[in-house]
This record gives sequence, structure tokens and C-alpha cells, in this order.
Amino acid sequence: MRVIGMMSGTSADGIDVALANISGAPPRLAAKLEGHYHNRFPKLVRETILRLANGAETTTAEISQLNFLLGEEFAGAAIAACAKWRIPLRKIALIGSHGQTVFHQGTPAKFLSTRRVASTLQIGEPSIIAERTGITTIADFRPGDMAAGGHGAPLVPFVDYLLYRSPKVGRVALNIGGIANVTIIPADARPRDVFAFDTGPGNMIVDALVERISGGRRAYDEGARIAAKGQVIRPLLEKMLRDPYLRRRPPKSAGREQFGGAYAADLFSRARKKRARSEDLVRTATIFTALSIVDAFRRFILPRTTVRQLIAAGGGTKNPLIMAQLQAGLQGIEIVPSSAFGIGEEAKEAFAFAILAYEAYHGRTNNLPSATGAKHSAVLGKLVHGRVR
Amino acid sequence: MRVIGMMSGTSADGIDVALANISGAPPRLAAKLEGHYHNRFPKLVRETILRLANGAETTTAEISQLNFLLGEEFAGAAIAACAKWRIPLRKIALIGSHGQTVFHQGTPAKFLSTRRVASTLQIGEPSIIAERTGITTIADFRPGDMAAGGHGAPLVPFVDYLLYRSPKVGRVALNIGGIANVTIIPADARPRDVFAFDTGPGNMIVDALVERISGGRRAYDEGARIAAKGQVIRPLLEKMLRDPYLRRRPPKSAGREQFGGAYAADLFSRARKKRARSEDLVRTATIFTALSIVDAFRRFILPRTTVRQLIAAGGGTKNPLIMAQLQAGLQGIEIVPSSAFGIGEEAKEAFAFAILAYEAYHGRTNNLPSATGAKHSAVLGKLVHGRVR
Repeated sequence: MRVIGMMSGTSADGIDVALANISGAPPRLAAKLEGHYHNRFPKLVRETILRLANGAETTTAEISQLNFLLGEEFAGAAIAACAKWRIPLRKIALIGSHGQTVFHQGTPAKFLSTRRVASTLQIGEPSIIAERTGITTIADFRPGDMAAGGHGAPLVPFVDYLLYRSPKVGRVALNIGGIANVTIIPADARPRDVFAFDTGPGNMIVDALVERISGGRRAYDEGARIAAKGQVIRPLLEKMLRDPYLRRRPPKSAGREQFGGAYAADLFSRARKKRARSEDLVRTATIFTALSIVDAFRRFILPRTTVRQLIAAGGGTKNPLIMAQLQAGLQGIEIVPSSAFGIGEEAKEAFAFAILAYEAYHGRTNNLPSATGAKHSAVLGKLVHGRVR
Repeated sequence: MRVIGMMSGTSADGIDVALANISGAPPRLAAKLEGHYHNRFPKLVRETILRLANGAETTTAEISQLNFLLGEEFAGAAIAACAKWRIPLRKIALIGSHGQTVFHQGTPAKFLSTRRVASTLQIGEPSIIAERTGITTIADFRPGDMAAGGHGAPLVPFVDYLLYRSPKVGRVALNIGGIANVTIIPADARPRDVFAFDTGPGNMIVDALVERISGGRRAYDEGARIAAKGQVIRPLLEKMLRDPYLRRRPPKSAGREQFGGAYAADLFSRARKKRARSEDLVRTATIFTALSIVDAFRRFILPRTTVRQLIAAGGGTKNPLIMAQLQAGLQGIEIVPSSAFGIGEEAKEAFAFAILAYEAYHGRTNNLPSATGAKHSAVLGKLVHGRVR
């Protein structure tokens, strides 16, 4: 079954389209990524999304119109992608569309004085996608998990489970983006055996330091060249490793609140006082990033299950110092790039929504309560029929 | 198959819940109304809906939260209705939910400077309904019709077609609400033979006059008692019958723009000048209402098809003067109340959404392009799976 997955992230720069060839059913589901395409949003569309997502005042008219307009954008992206891949639309059996998040609140908050409501809002009208492409479309996956008491996120660990589950080998899928997160898939795991959490910082601290040190000329420490020239500041590293986030039991999620600009600014001024060199600070933060992942393995993963392979993805895997430190800290665990499984990094999330749609289409549950906190598993997604010919 | 239909109208006073027992498939679909229940919205919920629907400023947060909160309200209404009917939820196979309209624009309008967008927004998160009840839920019917180029309305004529279609008898379903509308179902009709339009005013003009004359003490002319005391003002009636709306070819829709407060105020001041009595004015408006329907039959219905039965519903059917005038004007057509078909008036729309959901569930198209203006028929609605046990 050929399935298209589509995703537009919170940065709202455009739509990622993935083409997946999927067959079978869990535990023997096979999924291959056959294509990736990116369609940028027109400037005015992006600005409108970001304005609304940032909480600006709007009207039901504007949200309604933007929902339909984004439906056209998603439909257009799918059609353009198929044209590029030279695949006729009628060869695509199903579309899974995440849509564009314009609001997400995973835990209940006060609403209308006496009520408490958790909610999420993704737009990009699937009826428009189904009509323009003629392809049955499943969209809007997060509300189903939240209805079942979950946070509506993360949804990708379910796909990690389907793709990386092995009857004999315990695996961890690690993604080092701004934040680093892990999905733990024990050997022969059932869904409830899988767990996932954010280990702590990914590239976020090092990137912020490098940007500051370089006066904005560099966005990240390419090839760990800056860190390579420095020495670890021991007392600082030890202090960083005592961060309460690392001790908190999973499930847990981290963000800019913990390891964003304020954290980096504090590190920077601390290092200034001690007259530490910039490269020493970058090296210390780089080692901390790797060790916070190792720390998560020692505290929360290895005591619970045996891990033989770590499947690494994300920009952080290109930092050789992080990877060397991980390998040193995780003796006996084989580190494998996710590309070895045929999953290119950029396409990962869009690809995941193709698989989530495939599962929903077959009426099978597609959330991981152990990852989202939902009270039970559920079939996420809303199905809109393609054109009846 | 037991199916619940739910609807909340533009007045946002609460949720109508209908229980339908449906079997078979068109053209031999059978549907029986087995229960009706009305659940009022809490005051603050209603006020919030009306505020947003009236175009007040809001945020994505508020719309997202209201969508989930209304999901809880719809779920609660379904659960309360089943408790009242003493039917366990597990005996209900499907829910069809219209949701609450907070924006609707049937024809494209300018958006983001260069784009033209028609759109509609119904809220009341179906994932919440499906989760709380455990019942598979189909919701959000209008966007599919608009995606196919239709106005997203009216949707009920499709149900009139399913319920009232006869292999031998040509029928017209007439609803006299504020506005009067007809669905014409020729004998042995295929979907494309059916057409529907608003004939013009229903109770709107008479109600406005009565309210004005009574200083707000009466909302309508109960039993046509006021009109019974008056005489028709001929020249005024003839002028009213020359209204350009009546001449416009269907499909067409009328609203407060044509026959609302301004129209009634104009009539009133006109009658004042001629020193007409109030009861004469009410009688003239009552006769006009009936004759505008008769006029639609003569101009647009009878030249196209043979009609043997008129199935009348709506508050206007309780006005004996309207009904007598209709009967006088439509010689040879039998007038039958919709209750003769087992469909109580209040439950009609909610019942309709149970049937629309039943059709969508079976993957069958459920719009009438001849009524909505869509370029083709489509399966309207988004399906959310009930709980997987």
C-alpha cells in the first residue's frame, strides 16, 4: 500500500511530504520510505500561521478560512510531490496528514471559570485534501490521544516501535534535535513495554553558546571543532550533571523552559566569572549533552531492560565528540545511524504520519499510552473518504 | 442499526439528540425515530458560542478549548439521552454529530489578499464524543460538500430524499420555519432528480408583526386568531407577491436579509400610513406566506414534475389559515403532516444527521449536489473510531 504522510512543524516553514510503501500488520509491518518532498508556505501564509499560533487575536472567520486555505496547501503539496516522483495520484491508497498545530495544551487548564480543559488544534482541512487528490485521508491524530487522557504527544515513539521492534534485540531510538529524546523498545516488546521520554538537552545548549561566542556568525559547532580545542571544566560539568531534570522519573519532557536561552546565558556568565575559555565552555556543554543521555540510560533504561542497539538520528549525531562520548559511556551497545534503516532524517515525521494513518485505516490502535500518558490505546485520526468514482 | 444523531443550531440553546433505528440501503433504506432528547447548554457556554459566532475577537486557545469543551457537552448529551431512554451505550452502533457552527461562508470571499476561500467551521470535538461514549462517531459533514464546490448547505434534502422517495408518488417535503423551504422528490427519483430551495418567508414576517403589535407580549399568531379577525389588504398583497425573490430561479436561499426585521418594519409603517388595522396587516402577511409557497409550486415545481403529496413540517403547519390557503392553492395535492411518517418536528435535524452518518459509515455518498450546488456527490463526514475493547 502506497501511503503519503504530511507534516508541518511548529516553525511553519512548509510541508514535508513522505512517500511510504507499507505492507503487513504489526508485529510484522514493513515500511519503506520511497520519497521525500518539501513545499514551502507562501510568506503571507506562514506569517498568518505564526501570528495565530503565537496567541494573537483572531476571529472564527480567520481560523475557518485558514483551515480551508491550508487544506489547499497540503493538497497542493501532495499533488506536487507525486508529480515530482512521477507517480499518478490513483496509485496512492491513503494520505496521513498531521496538519499545522496552532494550539496545544497537553495538561488541563482552567476554561470558562469552572471547567478544566486540555486541548489541541491542528488545521489544514482534510476534506479539501481528499477532494483535490481523490485519496482517502486520515488527519487530526492528536485529539484522540488527549480524549483518552494523554498529552497528545509524543506520537512518533509508536512508529519507532513498529519500525525498530525486534524479537531478539533490545533497541533504543535516540533523536538528538534541540532536545534529545529516546524510545526504548525491549526485545520482543509488546506496546506496553515500550517507553519514551526526553533525556534532556540535545543541541540546544551548545548551539546557543556557539551563537553567542561567534557573535551570531555560527549556529552550531560544526564537526565539534570548537570543543576539540577546549578542556572540560570539571566542577561545572559536575554541577550540570546534578540538574534536577536528569533525576526526574520518566515520562518527562524538556524544552526551552529548561535548557533554552536563559540556561545558556547563565552558563556563559558563570564561565566569565571563572575566566574560563570559550572553547572550554563549549566542550563542557558538549560532554554534558552526551553524558545526560548516558545518565538516562544508567538511571532509567538499563535497570529496566537489556539494550543491544542504539539507533541514532538528528543533527546531534553529526557531532563526533557527542558520538564518541556516547560510545564510551555505553559500552556493549552498538550505535547505528537511522539511515541504516532507510529512514532519512528530514522525512522522519512525515513518514511517521503515513504509518499512523495506515494503522488507523485498518482500525488498529496507533498510540503508545506509555509514551503519551493516555489511559488506554486508541485509534487516532479522522477518516475522510476519497472521491467515490 | 441504532444510530444517534446530534445537532446544535445557530441559536445555540442546546443539543438535540435523536435516536434512529436504521436498516437497509437506498433506495430501500428504512429509518424510524425512536427517541428525542434536548440538553440545554450552560449559560456561559452558550454566551461564549454566540460571542465567537458573532465575530468577536478570540484566540486559537479559546477556539481549541471550546472545541474540546463542546465535545464534552455533546458526549454528555448522548449519555444523558441514553440514560433517559434506558438504552445501554453499547447498543448504539454509531453517532452522527453536526457540531456547533461558529462560522459559515458558502461562497468564496477574499482571504490573505490574493486568495479566495469559502469555508465553514463546526466545533464539538468528535474524538471526545467517541472516547466518552465508546461509540464510533462521524462528524463535520459540511466541509466535504464545500470542498466539492457546494455551499455546504442544505444537507437535510438528501435525507428527505431517502425518507420520502416513492417509486410511484411525486412528493414535496415542505418545512415552514422562519423561512420556508421545499425538497422536491419526483416519483422514482434518482438523486440528481431531486431539487430543493427556500420558497421565501415562513413564520418570520407574521411573527415579527405580531411581536410588534402586541408590544412583545406575543411571539406568534397562535391558531391564526389575529388574522382571523382581519381582511386582506389587496393592493399590499399584490405588491408583496411581486417580490423579486419569488421570481428568482432556484437554487436560492432566503434569510433575515430578505424577510427579517427590516422587511416587517417597512410593512408596518406602510400600513400605518394607509391607516390599515393590525389584524388586516397580519392576515395579509399570513396569506402572503402561504401564497409565496403556492407561487413557488406554480413557477418552479409543477412545470417540472408531478406532485401528489406535500409533506408539511415546521411551526407554520400549526397556522390553520396558512394550511387552508395552501390547500386551496394546491388543488389535487394531498397535504400530509410529517408526523404521519413518524418524524416529530423537533427531532428532524438531529434525526437527519443520524441518517447522514449511517450512509457515510457504509461509504455511500450523502450530499445532494442539486441542493447544495456541489460539482459531484461525495461522502460527507469524518469518522473517528469508538473505543477498541
